[in-house]
Amino acid sequence: MQLFVPFAAERPKTRLSAVLDNDERRELSRAMLDDVLDALERAAPVSPTVLATAPLESNHRVVVDDRPLTEAVNARLGSAPTAVVMADLPLATPDALGPLFETSTDLAIAAGLGGGTNAFLARDPAFHVDYHGASYLDHLAIAEKAGLSITEIDSRRLAVDVDEPEDLAELLLHGEGAAREWLVDAGFELDTGSGRVTVARSDGRM
Amino acid sequence: MQLFVPFAAERPKTRLSAVLDNDERRELSRAMLDDVLDALERAAPVSPTVLATAPLESNHRVVVDDRPLTEAVNARLGSAPTAVVMADLPLATPDALGPLFETSTDLAIAAGLGGGTNAFLARDPAFHVDYHGASYLDHLAIAEKAGLSITEIDSRRLAVDVDEPEDLAELLLHGEGAAREWLVDAGFELDTGSGRVTVARSDGRM
Repeated sequence: MQLFVPFAAERPKTRLSAVLDNDERRELSRAMLDDVLDALERAAPVSPTVLATAPLESNHRVVVDDRPLTEAVNARLGSAPTAVVMADLPLATPDALGPLFETSTDLAIAAGLGGGTNAFLARDPAFHVDYHGASYLDHLAIAEKAGLSITEIDSRRLAVDVDEPEDLAELLLHGEGAAREWLVDAGFELDTGSGRVTVARSDGRM
Repeated sequence: MQLFVPFAAERPKTRLSAVLDNDERRELSRAMLDDVLDALERAAPVSPTVLATAPLESNHRVVVDDRPLTEAVNARLGSAPTAVVMADLPLATPDALGPLFETSTDLAIAAGLGGGTNAFLARDPAFHVDYHGASYLDHLAIAEKAGLSITEIDSRRLAVDVDEPEDLAELLLHGEGAAREWLVDAGFELDTGSGRVTVARSDGRM
């Protein structure tokens, strides 16, 4: 089995730019990557490899591929069972990731909020990815068209990818690692004022 | 075991008022309730009872309690193992609900997005609820203080409660029942224009 964690090493997480500057987005992204790598080390049968858009310091193996995500991932599918887990899943725990690796179907796949694909394990070379748009439904369709057996992994912890400011509330609520610690150190706290919990920042920047 | 599904029969889902009028919000809320009741009939060891704020036509048993949710639920805890599952979880399937009823800990609990509590099964009379604010963390604290054993149910399908317009995208993406059908009939469709998938309405109202 191969296990890749794609990581946008440059200009990460632009949709958080309203609440975090460029250096902060880099730091938070790196903390989230490290949390995911830690969880995978404990949950997966093989060590994860970072699939980065640019060179990166890491204790883990890093391969650099500056092509768009879809191309970079498809280039690695086909020869052996391959798992791909996104780097922006700071709620991922070994318990949440475990079922992905315990499946024996041709494809195991976990949806992100908003229709993305946050993790998959493909054991059949007929599977390929297309991360544009609502990729989760597209990936199910690709697998069904190829006649593959599918396990849908139902996990909140794998569904929460941190893209938007509101996602930071989930990290404060349920995070257990470096990313949550970074966020607390940066002055973020829960705002339970009204309706769904959001975040506030101690310096008033949001 | 007792199993309750709280339902706000009057003025439901006010946070959806930007995209649905009052009658529409009633219809969608009712479709979501029916989806949850259907899933519970297949997943739970007992039939669900609707805990409604006002009288309601239903094939299921209905008890009316017009007090605030916290009081109405606490009044029913203590005498027997009691499960409470929210009515606005249209992605809940028997597979997603099953683990809640298969646990043997004093408390099994599933978080909603934004820190709410979307489902729980309490087998110990020491548990009580407080739905204000980020209730999930409060409920964990209540259980820990009472020395209860806890199972955290990690489910995307139980985490998505439909409160805000963006939640409608999850229903379009992953729904399988009456609520999704209602939404499609009302003209909603996925908008995969940019970033996270959202919804658009065919009449341009959003």
